[in-house]
Amino acid sequence: MPTALVILAAGQGTRMNSEMPKVLHQIAGAPLIAHAMRTGAAVDPERVVVVTGHGAERVEEAVAAFDPSAICVRQTEQLGTGHAVLQAAPALDGFAGDVIVLYGDTPFIRPETLDAMLVARRSHDIVVLGFEAAEPGGYGRLLMEEDRLVRIVEAKDATPEQLAISFCNSGLLAADAATLTGLLKKVENDNAAGEYYLTDIPALAAAAGLSATAIHAAERETLGIDTRAALVRAEALFQAARRAGMLEAGVTLTAPETVFFAYDTEIGRDAEVEPHVIFGPGVTVESGARIRAFSHLEGAHVGAGATVGPYARLRPGAELGNGARVGNFVEVKEARIGEGTKVNHLSYIGDATLGEGSNIGAGTITCNYDGVMKHETQIGARAFIGSNTMLVAPVTVGEEAMTASGSVITEDVPAGALALARGKQVNKPGLATKLMARLRAIKASKKG
Amino acid sequence: MPTALVILAAGQGTRMNSEMPKVLHQIAGAPLIAHAMRTGAAVDPERVVVVTGHGAERVEEAVAAFDPSAICVRQTEQLGTGHAVLQAAPALDGFAGDVIVLYGDTPFIRPETLDAMLVARRSHDIVVLGFEAAEPGGYGRLLMEEDRLVRIVEAKDATPEQLAISFCNSGLLAADAATLTGLLKKVENDNAAGEYYLTDIPALAAAAGLSATAIHAAERETLGIDTRAALVRAEALFQAARRAGMLEAGVTLTAPETVFFAYDTEIGRDAEVEPHVIFGPGVTVESGARIRAFSHLEGAHVGAGATVGPYARLRPGAELGNGARVGNFVEVKEARIGEGTKVNHLSYIGDATLGEGSNIGAGTITCNYDGVMKHETQIGARAFIGSNTMLVAPVTVGEEAMTASGSVITEDVPAGALALARGKQVNKPGLATKLMARLRAIKASKKG
Amino acid sequence: MPTALVILAAGQGTRMNSEMPKVLHQIAGAPLIAHAMRTGAAVDPERVVVVTGHGAERVEEAVAAFDPSAICVRQTEQLGTGHAVLQAAPALDGFAGDVIVLYGDTPFIRPETLDAMLVARRSHDIVVLGFEAAEPGGYGRLLMEEDRLVRIVEAKDATPEQLAISFCNSGLLAADAATLTGLLKKVENDNAAGEYYLTDIPALAAAAGLSATAIHAAERETLGIDTRAALVRAEALFQAARRAGMLEAGVTLTAPETVFFAYDTEIGRDAEVEPHVIFGPGVTVESGARIRAFSHLEGAHVGAGATVGPYARLRPGAELGNGARVGNFVEVKEARIGEGTKVNHLSYIGDATLGEGSNIGAGTITCNYDGVMKHETQIGARAFIGSNTMLVAPVTVGEEAMTASGSVITEDVPAGALALARGKQVNKPGLATKLMARLRAIKASKKG
Repeated sequence: MPTALVILAAGQGTRMNSEMPKVLHQIAGAPLIAHAMRTGAAVDPERVVVVTGHGAERVEEAVAAFDPSAICVRQTEQLGTGHAVLQAAPALDGFAGDVIVLYGDTPFIRPETLDAMLVARRSHDIVVLGFEAAEPGGYGRLLMEEDRLVRIVEAKDATPEQLAISFCNSGLLAADAATLTGLLKKVENDNAAGEYYLTDIPALAAAAGLSATAIHAAERETLGIDTRAALVRAEALFQAARRAGMLEAGVTLTAPETVFFAYDTEIGRDAEVEPHVIFGPGVTVESGARIRAFSHLEGAHVGAGATVGPYARLRPGAELGNGARVGNFVEVKEARIGEGTKVNHLSYIGDATLGEGSNIGAGTITCNYDGVMKHETQIGARAFIGSNTMLVAPVTVGEEAMTASGSVITEDVPAGALALARGKQVNKPGLATKLMARLRAIKASKKG
Repeated sequence: MPTALVILAAGQGTRMNSEMPKVLHQIAGAPLIAHAMRTGAAVDPERVVVVTGHGAERVEEAVAAFDPSAICVRQTEQLGTGHAVLQAAPALDGFAGDVIVLYGDTPFIRPETLDAMLVARRSHDIVVLGFEAAEPGGYGRLLMEEDRLVRIVEAKDATPEQLAISFCNSGLLAADAATLTGLLKKVENDNAAGEYYLTDIPALAAAAGLSATAIHAAERETLGIDTRAALVRAEALFQAARRAGMLEAGVTLTAPETVFFAYDTEIGRDAEVEPHVIFGPGVTVESGARIRAFSHLEGAHVGAGATVGPYARLRPGAELGNGARVGNFVEVKEARIGEGTKVNHLSYIGDATLGEGSNIGAGTITCNYDGVMKHETQIGARAFIGSNTMLVAPVTVGEEAMTASGSVITEDVPAGALALARGKQVNKPGLATKLMARLRAIKASKKG
Repeated sequence: MPTALVILAAGQGTRMNSEMPKVLHQIAGAPLIAHAMRTGAAVDPERVVVVTGHGAERVEEAVAAFDPSAICVRQTEQLGTGHAVLQAAPALDGFAGDVIVLYGDTPFIRPETLDAMLVARRSHDIVVLGFEAAEPGGYGRLLMEEDRLVRIVEAKDATPEQLAISFCNSGLLAADAATLTGLLKKVENDNAAGEYYLTDIPALAAAAGLSATAIHAAERETLGIDTRAALVRAEALFQAARRAGMLEAGVTLTAPETVFFAYDTEIGRDAEVEPHVIFGPGVTVESGARIRAFSHLEGAHVGAGATVGPYARLRPGAELGNGARVGNFVEVKEARIGEGTKVNHLSYIGDATLGEGSNIGAGTITCNYDGVMKHETQIGARAFIGSNTMLVAPVTVGEEAMTASGSVITEDVPAGALALARGKQVNKPGLATKLMARLRAIKASKKG
């Protein structure tokens, strides 16, 4: 049976106290909406419809970045969840199959849970995802008769007996597309807020002689993000799970509570991550590599047995070969560092290709920007770049070539050649002593 | 009614195991005494008297730094709290009004609580601040009869019935200045320690036909700092409160538990603070700015939409214009960075003014110190400073001027000019190969 | 009575999911086996025998690094703990006295506990170390009759009554060497695994008319490391204890939970350690020094009143004199920094000796490596090294000498002299404007 997703992402998120639409706030380096879309993608949907509203342009941009084939529809008025889902109906035109309604601010739903909803759909017309709430409080209660969901009652409308029910509504719902659209058209807004609620669907289904059910998810999966404090807790939950998963996968972590992973970080067995390390999106680290303290990696690949840091910053496009070393106060961006090559101290390597077995001296800078354009630096294998060499790109240093410390290299250096570009040293005897005496006199006279 | 504060700050703090006077230990970047003075300042006192003793000179310096008009009096002998307050009497000469006795090691009292004490003073001669202790243990018990405080009984002198009382003495007390001084003179030292205790005041007041009362504060407010472990807990409490407050105010924090704020940090809505960031005193960050991981800020201002770090160090006097960028391994001190200007890599900018829209290359250093004095660097708008430029101050680079990579700039550069100061590159064919062979031979011979 | 240790370190540690032998995983910068050996060393053993197996070569290397006199014997087949201890018998040849059996993966045993085992040995032939287990689960139960240990029963063989016993076997055992060897030879392998278990010893002792007992340790001491999650918890326990100990010793820690100590870190009273600092092995910090945020120290000594960081990296052999300063983005390795000397910004100082009272400018680099060998730099007292000076070692700068900013120093600089090595500045009027215009035109044409 083909599946479609309707993801609600129109809410303002007032309690976030932010100009940014709620679903663009991030967990583990990805916006909430992307987490919801990633979960949804696991059921291999034929169509993905995202209902946007507040900050629609920015949300639509994020949706397209994750899945360019997703269809965005706008809910221009905020008239309730039922109304929101109904906006998706035209985008589902011609689609026959199951629809799952998901939420852009509910990032912890597992793919297995969506699968379970679809399985339950084989026996019921409507499937609602519920959870046993530790503190049911204001959640909608699921009124069940055996495995049939009779209706969802809002907490404020519930009798004391109903309030005692702890099986609550997560908001997720699955139904046949045509059935869902048909029922949604029957939803009325005769309530205090004047809104159309998706929660009316099970009762309408029952009235129409259809069968509804509810299945169980862990409460933690159904966690929605409404405040920045909730977002912080969600991030902490995500990180705790990732850290535990990394340990199980054989990664060495000394102080996991100080290491932050992105949603897609991949680290090989017996790789070591010291305390105080941050992984942005797009990082892969191979087996046996060592990521030392205070390192910051984004969009980078670290080869087997390579060493990064302490205090190394790998930016997108940094590719470290096996056994390479990028040391302290070194930034690497859009650059391939050859196998075994060392960039150990105080350097900036950007838009460059470094051959294997080279040694890049402290303070080396690839001058890749001329104020208007970026240019590339090529360094051959087994080259020796002296300390504080400026490589004014575009420039090539050949294999086994050397540059003298403090040189500004503006022309290519042939293989095996030594390039120098610096002034000759002159010692002026006694001048330091004289200069200092003069400076001290000036300072004294200024005070006088 | 005018108010005066008497702040007791003479204690040795033996359990801190420190050469430093206890009240100079810090929370959130300010000494304990400053926290007490800040709270006290909220009642707009006409006079502030601080009683010093242990490490008096250093404490008096800290007091003057916070409030130059505060009067310090010394308690040369440590003869108890009553004796300490009595030392303040001469400094209160000519003052008519309420005195509040505060403590230099009790940093969590809220201004509202002092206000409540002053309100209670309208109906009672003596007002003591009490709290319901979770574990009353060794605290003095407040013996109440309705709203009248009969007396304070020390735990060691208490009957079992009195020990069952959980309403305890915080030590804070408010009274009319003359009344307080009069009663203090009646306090005796006929106890094991031979000390004069402020806790005798309520009983003496009752004996004199005056009325005393006690009002309630939260126990957490009355927390005094006696050990380094207590100081660490107090810092953690302070940070937890600040982090929660920042979230509520709309600041984006991914991992608040790794971010440390100073007492006066101000951050605008939708500004983002990544993990592992430290704010020293005096930092303001405007809305929409981004403070990236591993950054360290003290005495700095960050304009709207500016980006700081990762690994940026902003020292006092750093002023970043809107949209400016200070990147990795960059230190800024006493310098204004113009709107949209970028200092992205490995630079030191001190005692400088940078115009807007300029680009400062990697490895740029303002050479501001000649060994005796500091000098200033001026860079005009839209200038392009090549990588590894040394700007030997005092020096000026004009608008839209450029410096060539690796130049040492000792003379002013006119607007629109290009300044070069570097040796010409020479390539010596085959010399690198020859040199390496020679070095390897030397090494081999040394081993042989 | 002379004592010998037998330390079992042959296990594979399958649940660690690691290529590395389990006992080489680290806590606080030292492998587990070293922690066990350190505890054992406290009873001043006459002989130390380590039984290796899985990854024997690497384990033996670590054993020799900690104690070159330790004897390693290999258990080539993994036939149980009894078999493992028996492999040590030849290495104990000629030794008369007590043997304590320890475990390479049990790092928290205290020396006092081993002492208590030896004291108990005076009254009993066999002494087993037990603990009251909070959750006895799968631990072996100690069947006691008064102070006599009758036998150890494995959980899987225990009756319900025996399972109710919470006094459990830690595995540690002490006995006379000859007695132990004699009993071990009687151990049989008639069990499901076909292994020889050390836990049979007490019952065999009883059968032979010998007396066995068990003494109590805290459960936390007996914690063995079987998984990476357990290793992380052990590290956290270790760090918590060290942090508390540092506070008690009068060290100022603002956020101890972000500071990581090595097993041997020594810090003086009133030294201050800011948040986010990492101590590798071999660091000593003297009283009143200040270690600022984001610093990383290994094998370094910091003199009294010195300041390190923020963002300072001290590597092995860094020795900071009293009052010295090593500032941000500075790396120091195998170098002595004289009293009061400052290396404040963006520098690499390796293989160097710096006299007292010198000032090392920002961006200074000791060019210590020529591609083959390392060389030394000497700087005299009160020298002034200009910003971005390259010191091409071997080289000496005399007392009170200066180097001009941006100089490459290849020859010695006499005391009091000023050394310059740089090109002369030339300003080309209007050229920057022209260049930028040309670059923009090229960029535009590329797009066109």
